[in-house]
Amino acid sequence: MTQQENTKKYISPDELVYIGKHRNTEVDVHLMDFGPDHFEEFSINNISEARGYLEKKSLTWITFNGLHDVDLVEQLKNNRINSHILSDILDTSLRPTFQEYENAFFISLKMFDYDKEKKTISTDHFSLVIHKNAILSFTEKPTTIFDPLIEIIKKGKKRIVENSMDYLVFRILDIVVDHYILLLRELGDDIDAFEEILLTEQNMEILDQIITYKKLVNRIRRNIKPALETITMLTKYDVEYINDSSSVYFNELLNDLKQSNEIADGYREILSDQLNIYHTTISSKLNSVMMTLTIFSVIFIPLTFIAGIYGTNFENIPELRFKYSYYFMWVFMIIITLFMLNYFRKKKWIKW
Amino acid sequence: MTQQENTKKYISPDELVYIGKHRNTEVDVHLMDFGPDHFEEFSINNISEARGYLEKKSLTWITFNGLHDVDLVEQLKNNRINSHILSDILDTSLRPTFQEYENAFFISLKMFDYDKEKKTISTDHFSLVIHKNAILSFTEKPTTIFDPLIEIIKKGKKRIVENSMDYLVFRILDIVVDHYILLLRELGDDIDAFEEILLTEQNMEILDQIITYKKLVNRIRRNIKPALETITMLTKYDVEYINDSSSVYFNELLNDLKQSNEIADGYREILSDQLNIYHTTISSKLNSVMMTLTIFSVIFIPLTFIAGIYGTNFENIPELRFKYSYYFMWVFMIIITLFMLNYFRKKKWIKW
Amino acid sequence: MTQQENTKKYISPDELVYIGKHRNTEVDVHLMDFGPDHFEEFSINNISEARGYLEKKSLTWITFNGLHDVDLVEQLKNNRINSHILSDILDTSLRPTFQEYENAFFISLKMFDYDKEKKTISTDHFSLVIHKNAILSFTEKPTTIFDPLIEIIKKGKKRIVENSMDYLVFRILDIVVDHYILLLRELGDDIDAFEEILLTEQNMEILDQIITYKKLVNRIRRNIKPALETITMLTKYDVEYINDSSSVYFNELLNDLKQSNEIADGYREILSDQLNIYHTTISSKLNSVMMTLTIFSVIFIPLTFIAGIYGTNFENIPELRFKYSYYFMWVFMIIITLFMLNYFRKKKWIKW
Amino acid sequence: MTQQENTKKYISPDELVYIGKHRNTEVDVHLMDFGPDHFEEFSINNISEARGYLEKKSLTWITFNGLHDVDLVEQLKNNRINSHILSDILDTSLRPTFQEYENAFFISLKMFDYDKEKKTISTDHFSLVIHKNAILSFTEKPTTIFDPLIEIIKKGKKRIVENSMDYLVFRILDIVVDHYILLLRELGDDIDAFEEILLTEQNMEILDQIITYKKLVNRIRRNIKPALETITMLTKYDVEYINDSSSVYFNELLNDLKQSNEIADGYREILSDQLNIYHTTISSKLNSVMMTLTIFSVIFIPLTFIAGIYGTNFENIPELRFKYSYYFMWVFMIIITLFMLNYFRKKKWIKW
Amino acid sequence: MTQQENTKKYISPDELVYIGKHRNTEVDVHLMDFGPDHFEEFSINNISEARGYLEKKSLTWITFNGLHDVDLVEQLKNNRINSHILSDILDTSLRPTFQEYENAFFISLKMFDYDKEKKTISTDHFSLVIHKNAILSFTEKPTTIFDPLIEIIKKGKKRIVENSMDYLVFRILDIVVDHYILLLRELGDDIDAFEEILLTEQNMEILDQIITYKKLVNRIRRNIKPALETITMLTKYDVEYINDSSSVYFNELLNDLKQSNEIADGYREILSDQLNIYHTTISSKLNSVMMTLTIFSVIFIPLTFIAGIYGTNFENIPELRFKYSYYFMWVFMIIITLFMLNYFRKKKWIKW
Ligand SMILES: [Mg+2]
Ligand SMILES: [Mg+2]
Ligand SMILES: [Mg+2]
Ligand SMILES: [Mg+2]
Ligand SMILES: [Mg+2]
Ligand SMILES: [Mg+2]
Ligand SMILES: [Mg+2]
Ligand SMILES: [Mg+2]
Ligand SMILES: [Mg+2]
Ligand SMILES: [Mg+2]
Ligand SMILES: [Mg+2]
Ligand SMILES: [Mg+2]
Ligand SMILES: [Mg+2]
Ligand SMILES: [Mg+2]
Ligand SMILES: [Mg+2]
Ligand SMILES: [Mg+2]
Ligand SMILES: [Mg+2]
Ligand SMILES: [Mg+2]
Ligand SMILES: [Mg+2]
Ligand SMILES: [Mg+2]
Ligand SMILES: [Mg+2]
Ligand SMILES: [Mg+2]
Ligand SMILES: [Mg+2]
Ligand SMILES: [Mg+2]
Ligand SMILES: [Mg+2]
Ligand SMILES: [Mg+2]
Ligand SMILES: [Mg+2]
Ligand SMILES: [Mg+2]
Ligand SMILES: [Mg+2]
Ligand SMILES: [Mg+2]
Ligand SMILES: [Mg+2]
Repeated sequence: MTQQENTKKYISPDELVYIGKHRNTEVDVHLMDFGPDHFEEFSINNISEARGYLEKKSLTWITFNGLHDVDLVEQLKNNRINSHILSDILDTSLRPTFQEYENAFFISLKMFDYDKEKKTISTDHFSLVIHKNAILSFTEKPTTIFDPLIEIIKKGKKRIVENSMDYLVFRILDIVVDHYILLLRELGDDIDAFEEILLTEQNMEILDQIITYKKLVNRIRRNIKPALETITMLTKYDVEYINDSSSVYFNELLNDLKQSNEIADGYREILSDQLNIYHTTISSKLNSVMMTLTIFSVIFIPLTFIAGIYGTNFENIPELRFKYSYYFMWVFMIIITLFMLNYFRKKKWIKW
Repeated sequence: MTQQENTKKYISPDELVYIGKHRNTEVDVHLMDFGPDHFEEFSINNISEARGYLEKKSLTWITFNGLHDVDLVEQLKNNRINSHILSDILDTSLRPTFQEYENAFFISLKMFDYDKEKKTISTDHFSLVIHKNAILSFTEKPTTIFDPLIEIIKKGKKRIVENSMDYLVFRILDIVVDHYILLLRELGDDIDAFEEILLTEQNMEILDQIITYKKLVNRIRRNIKPALETITMLTKYDVEYINDSSSVYFNELLNDLKQSNEIADGYREILSDQLNIYHTTISSKLNSVMMTLTIFSVIFIPLTFIAGIYGTNFENIPELRFKYSYYFMWVFMIIITLFMLNYFRKKKWIKW
Repeated sequence: MTQQENTKKYISPDELVYIGKHRNTEVDVHLMDFGPDHFEEFSINNISEARGYLEKKSLTWITFNGLHDVDLVEQLKNNRINSHILSDILDTSLRPTFQEYENAFFISLKMFDYDKEKKTISTDHFSLVIHKNAILSFTEKPTTIFDPLIEIIKKGKKRIVENSMDYLVFRILDIVVDHYILLLRELGDDIDAFEEILLTEQNMEILDQIITYKKLVNRIRRNIKPALETITMLTKYDVEYINDSSSVYFNELLNDLKQSNEIADGYREILSDQLNIYHTTISSKLNSVMMTLTIFSVIFIPLTFIAGIYGTNFENIPELRFKYSYYFMWVFMIIITLFMLNYFRKKKWIKW
Repeated sequence: MTQQENTKKYISPDELVYIGKHRNTEVDVHLMDFGPDHFEEFSINNISEARGYLEKKSLTWITFNGLHDVDLVEQLKNNRINSHILSDILDTSLRPTFQEYENAFFISLKMFDYDKEKKTISTDHFSLVIHKNAILSFTEKPTTIFDPLIEIIKKGKKRIVENSMDYLVFRILDIVVDHYILLLRELGDDIDAFEEILLTEQNMEILDQIITYKKLVNRIRRNIKPALETITMLTKYDVEYINDSSSVYFNELLNDLKQSNEIADGYREILSDQLNIYHTTISSKLNSVMMTLTIFSVIFIPLTFIAGIYGTNFENIPELRFKYSYYFMWVFMIIITLFMLNYFRKKKWIKW
Repeated sequence: MTQQENTKKYISPDELVYIGKHRNTEVDVHLMDFGPDHFEEFSINNISEARGYLEKKSLTWITFNGLHDVDLVEQLKNNRINSHILSDILDTSLRPTFQEYENAFFISLKMFDYDKEKKTISTDHFSLVIHKNAILSFTEKPTTIFDPLIEIIKKGKKRIVENSMDYLVFRILDIVVDHYILLLRELGDDIDAFEEILLTEQNMEILDQIITYKKLVNRIRRNIKPALETITMLTKYDVEYINDSSSVYFNELLNDLKQSNEIADGYREILSDQLNIYHTTISSKLNSVMMTLTIFSVIFIPLTFIAGIYGTNFENIPELRFKYSYYFMWVFMIIITLFMLNYFRKKKWIKW
């Protein structure tokens, strides 16, 4: 059984099973410990190496760059992390959530990555376990998304290193949430650019493209709403390690998420309109094609009929014998044609 | 009158009438009693056999594997279970609900089963009566869905057997609720796979298929919303036998239900889009068919007309007598054809 | 002025005017008085006959089987019933409502009756005035809907006759509300059965039928929402004669109404989809018709053109004189035909 | 600059500018003063004439039958009415609103008038300023809508003249709000009647008509929602001059507004369905037209081809020389025709 | 890297980066200080020049007419303005927001400008920092929108200059918010005017126009909702410098915003209907075109067939030899024609 197939069978809520893409790489666990006047960082192979830092009063941030090593995560059980949390960390299909446990807060969000070439979005299951003096963050694969923040920490930027846990949590979440907007802008540019093509060409590929974009936008939308719920709970709950004075920062996060939501809704509507336009354009084109056919047919049908009449082999057709009959026929046909062209002009089917 | 027809007539809210599919099998009632250091189980024929266990402090779980034996359920009246509860247990058409009675809590949900071959969903009316030291669960037919949990109980897994009633309730409900997600994933895979076909073929069967999927998804959706309501009430109500500390588990259930809801909404939208695409694809195809017809007709109509002209039997048609008239006619026809092909190319009806 | 026209002019909110269908029948007012050990019933001609029973502690239920006798209702003014209530009782166009007056509660709902043959729904304006020891119920016309309940009362069923007013109110409302579900199931069966026809036939009658069903479903939906509001207010208000312990019964009513609402929403969506399918099926059929025409035309147009060419009367057409020209023409035509059939097969317009 | 153009430029919120249709008529200001045993009424030219009545304990109702005389309204400034209120009274484009000022309550609603002939709705900006002992009402033009109420007041009807301010406010608002329902019923009758035509005829006028109705219904809907908000605020606010006991009357208003809203929503949906039906009917008709054309063409195309073949002038066509060839041709053609008719019958394109 | 590209990369929430259109102009910072009996104004080059005025008790309003000079804004850091506020002021892509900081309130809204010629809307990021005795306002470019208010201040209008901060804030926001309505009215006039064209002409430009309008309306809508949120927070929060008595003014703002929202929703629906009408009109036209073609074809096809029959060269066609055959053929053709015309008249395809 592959790990992806785990999403198809029942898993106990406290069972530690990795549910996600199969990966072979070794999982790197990285520890950073810092304060106003120190910064220390190293990789660890065993959670026990972190023990000291977790208790210490200075801020500690441990990043797990992969979830597929279940044994590594299981070691956290000894560190008094609830097995329900650990189970949720390992389940990449989990909906964004916030949970308050005895000794920790658990936040889970999705991170997205848009591949402009292939028009696909890849998801990363991001979890955060917040203790009094330590944060544990988990991603499915190594990510560089937090590098700007780590850079600031390394530079010993006052605000983050002096403040308590809550400002650091805000800064981590801000990066995740801001990337929703950045992603939506990139995706939006592609959708906007695509609109140009829409009005000049129609084919099944275009229809397919609209549908693909719709699905991408909807996938993001479906993750923003629970993220909004999650952050709202974080601000509403009287979370112990989060100062009231920092609620202003979490409001910033909420505003970002609402903006993401609105941008996504906007593109959703644009795509829905594009589908409509595509449909209408085809009808429009069909109409123009049919007009051409009709004008042509309606003009020639009676003319061909007349020619047919005089092509009959009746022995007694008086008209055939008059000297100028043939010319009269032409004149008559021209009159009919003009009459009909005039009719179409009046009906505005043709412009003169 | 069959039992199904009961859904078409008025039933008193405290009347004990089985409303559901006719079944002939005998109903098995199974009792499990367990604690940190014992596990006992046996089938019972008469509710009075359970009397002792219900009073006893150890956890007792009685499963009714069928609802069609009204007499059996009626015996519970003597066990101080409200006749309104019993009436609701027997009514398989009942909407998911939560009710707090004097001495018990009543929860009712639907369980689903997706038949991949026939593309149908079968429903099972699941009820739970929660007493201080005993749980009674009811299903329309025997089910294996709770086997993993029973296995854990048999193994004497600490958490469940030591905890009070509430953790057991959570674990039972978690199985029901997790199966919503599992079901939706299976159904979703079928819908996704089906999309491939959609873009290449169009016929009434495909339309029929989309509609069938829409109905399945909507049926599930219509049951998730009240389930969400039900679990929310369970967490909000200050339920006596449920500890405040275990609210975190019920939040897990809510999150699962919200995820089910979102997955269902997602597929609902995908199916709505598929209907749209189906419609648009047909228009698209019609357009292409009409273009072919029009190009052909418009080119040949004037040519045929010319041939008709020279097929007339007028005595005096000077052109007929010139030696190279026939060749001139061909040249003239070719010129007309080229002229029109050029016109269509300009209009982008044909690609060169 | 007919009574129906009253809906088109302004009526003072305390004016007693019957607004509804014209009726000639005499209005029967029926009184039932009962307790644990007695049951009395008789028809009355004048409200004064009921005076004694209204004061008496035993439960009294007076049914007005018609609203068109305004004088009869007017007599209730002397019984300290607010003229605003009486005005609302007589206005069959009134939206479902709940009002708490000094000495009474007023509940107004709609009852429906579905005529399977004519596909119509008739409405009955149902009102309930609840005093401490007496209930007055009003319907537009005599109804048998409450007979099962009256039967139970006559049998002296303990629960109803021993309980105070609130359980009786619940049982009356339960009948009204349960009939919504029964009605929707009946209507739903017709809609489901109708769907079969939809996929095989298309004509204006079918379109008309879908619209008719849509209107029926929407009419019911529009009455369920305010009914839900009404019952919710009944449970929320600290209604004097309603015990807190009986709130569980009113929750049952709410659940029934929510289920009605969901069933109605389900059928609304199904009908909306049917309209969609109807539209798409027509497009689908048009496409198939056009394909047939196009294939036929495109094959024969060039053949007919060739025949036309050799039907011209030019004196010098060398081909005409060769001995096997006619056969060559046939061969050439067959080749063209095969070529085109092959083209259509490739385009998947025809299956071989 | 005309007064209508004022809607296009910024106006200070305390500036007194009439924003509305230009009117030339003189504005009549009418004063009524009444109590249990007196009724007095007269027109005034200057607000100062009303001074005494405003202070007096008896109920005073002053109606301004026009808003275009800004000077008249400006005189109210001296009567301690806030200039923000006065500015809002003069702005006919204002959204329905409720405001509580130091010494007065301000309510603004829209009144509608439906012109059955022209299918247009005219709006009247209605404002109410409620003081302790006096009401000031403002309309854009003279109206007879309140005549029934004034009639009741003149007759010295107990309830209104004895009650304090709040019952009078209720009766005034009830008239405004009830007219929404009356208007919607009238408009609804026209829409229902129109539906008959829809199924038999299709042309641009019908499409235009649906759109016109949609806009009318939407315009009303857009005003009901804020009216509902306004009345809700009136009931929620602990308004000084409004007794708690009269909240039952304001609930009546809310119920009326909700009913208006539901009727409007109902017709909105009906019109949306009509648009859908119109579209589907056209497609249906097109389908039937195309079928006729196709059946005709497909039958005659091969026949005409055969005739064409034997109209060629090849010297050597053996069939031409056989004596009964012509008759065989006819037989052959009849066979082909029957064959095709049979094909169409099977495809259900023609009924036999 | 241009400044616009900043919207595509992650910016720290306390980093001061201008995110918006590149501009070269110098930023003018203008200071106004005023009270009941003084008015002073001048431009400043360095924020330090304003220091004295900010502390002073008189009202001070400083306008920053441009955001692209980051250094200028950075000077405000020394004035105890939080760097998160400053970062938000410089980010023109920010969603409307309200934030309460230690010593200031921050409000951010969008201002719009509609270019009637080009059918485009340009946005201006407007921010307001409210201190106890001073307001700082920021716009992307110089604007004349506040001139009427400044005029009033200069005239020493009592209300504004005497009142505390809150009334001034209201008057500034009222201008911003009222311009939403003015803008929507202007845009709405264009949409209404455009509707005329819609019913007579159909082409891709019209479709393109509808889409353009839809996007404009949606862009405004997406900014009104958060603006509504922002002002609601301003009224709900117990903002220190805002008196309870002035909540009536902020309610005015809310009412304006709700009206904007409703107008925008109205036009959104109108445009959605226009798209629908456009689609339906095309179908309608196609239907009429096809009818013409069908009537013509169906009449002439059998006639042409008959002529074809008698154009065959069979040696033995008895009809050809009768003297009046040709005339009989004409009579027969006329009969067929009349028969078919009659058929079409019955089917209501042609009117007689
Ligand atoms: Mg699970
Ligand atoms: Mg979990
Ligand atoms: Mg951010
Ligand atoms: Mg979508
Ligand atoms: Mg849209
Ligand atoms: Mg969509
Ligand atoms: Mg559509
Ligand atoms: Mg369409
Ligand atoms: Mg029932
Ligand atoms: Mg029940
Ligand atoms: Mg679960
Ligand atoms: Mg749907
Ligand atoms: Mg469509
Ligand atoms: Mg009324
Ligand atoms: Mg009433
Ligand atoms: Mg019931
Ligand atoms: Mg509907
Ligand atoms: Mg649906
Ligand atoms: Mg639909
Ligand atoms: Mg204004
Ligand atoms: Mg105002
Ligand atoms: Mg009323
Ligand atoms: Mg509408
Ligand atoms: Mg509808
Ligand atoms: Mg359509
Ligand atoms: Mg940011
Ligand atoms: Mg920010
Ligand atoms: Mg304003
Ligand atoms: Mg205003
Ligand atoms: Mg839109
Ligand atoms: Mg609409």
